[in-house]
Amino acid sequence: MHEKELETFLRSRIPLCAAMAVEVRTASPSAVVIFAPLAPNLNHRDTAFGGSVSAVAILAAWSVLYVRMQAEGLTGRIVIRRNSMSYDRPIAGDFTATAAAPDAADWVRFRATLARNRTARIRVAARIESGGERAGELEGEFAVLPARPDDARTDA
Amino acid sequence: MHEKELETFLRSRIPLCAAMAVEVRTASPSAVVIFAPLAPNLNHRDTAFGGSVSAVAILAAWSVLYVRMQAEGLTGRIVIRRNSMSYDRPIAGDFTATAAAPDAADWVRFRATLARNRTARIRVAARIESGGERAGELEGEFAVLPARPDDARTDA
Repeated sequence: MHEKELETFLRSRIPLCAAMAVEVRTASPSAVVIFAPLAPNLNHRDTAFGGSVSAVAILAAWSVLYVRMQAEGLTGRIVIRRNSMSYDRPIAGDFTATAAAPDAADWVRFRATLARNRTARIRVAARIESGGERAGELEGEFAVLPARPDDARTDA
Repeated sequence: MHEKELETFLRSRIPLCAAMAVEVRTASPSAVVIFAPLAPNLNHRDTAFGGSVSAVAILAAWSVLYVRMQAEGLTGRIVIRRNSMSYDRPIAGDFTATAAAPDAADWVRFRATLARNRTARIRVAARIESGGERAGELEGEFAVLPARPDDARTDA
């Protein structure tokens, strides 16, 4: 799955992605980078709205899991269970969210659980940057539900 | 500050609030309830996008702090520092975020810190509900920076 393909998927299927005008800058099984312009993501103080920052970080984390599962031929429905987010400073410009692939040992366990047709949990982190500086960090926990035989819309 | 006034403020000053089509159902110093229709907040699975859910919860938490500060004549810039969010189940319909006023003892400390012209921190929680059931919970931590004399755009 390439950058443009993921971007089209996100923007056509998730209305808020179109509203936030996100662009996919990197889409590989090891990292996803999502860019968000400031203008549609402003707050009343002319800096980035925390809700936008958080949503873009969640999107990056979900996407790296989606792209990696697809690359490895894994199927299942990805659901977010919880996340924590820190905001280091006001963001006065465009920003990116970079999600790295999950920890290698966690990934082995995750694959094994899915192979037993059971719900598998995995943590994914995403870093927010703006103007070359770190501006925040997300820690997300996702559950992947095994694909049902009748589920034509399996995510990955 | 009444419901319509807060809603107009949010939707006119934060583009994502207009995109999410949020409505303010309650705006008082003791609670803010924000309603979000499902359609503009869908994910590719026809349930609510986690990024939208999180953003609406952040908005409710920020708003109750804003409304309460305004009611008590307190000035300062409200900034989100961190939040944690749990998602209990997929949301298949419209949803609300209800933020309650901060803990009373915390509020006394918060007021005293602001009165000394220092940055004050406060925790605010927001509960997500859909179809009469709890669907998630946010715990947010905000910092309020004392108003600067030259700051004409003080939040509250």
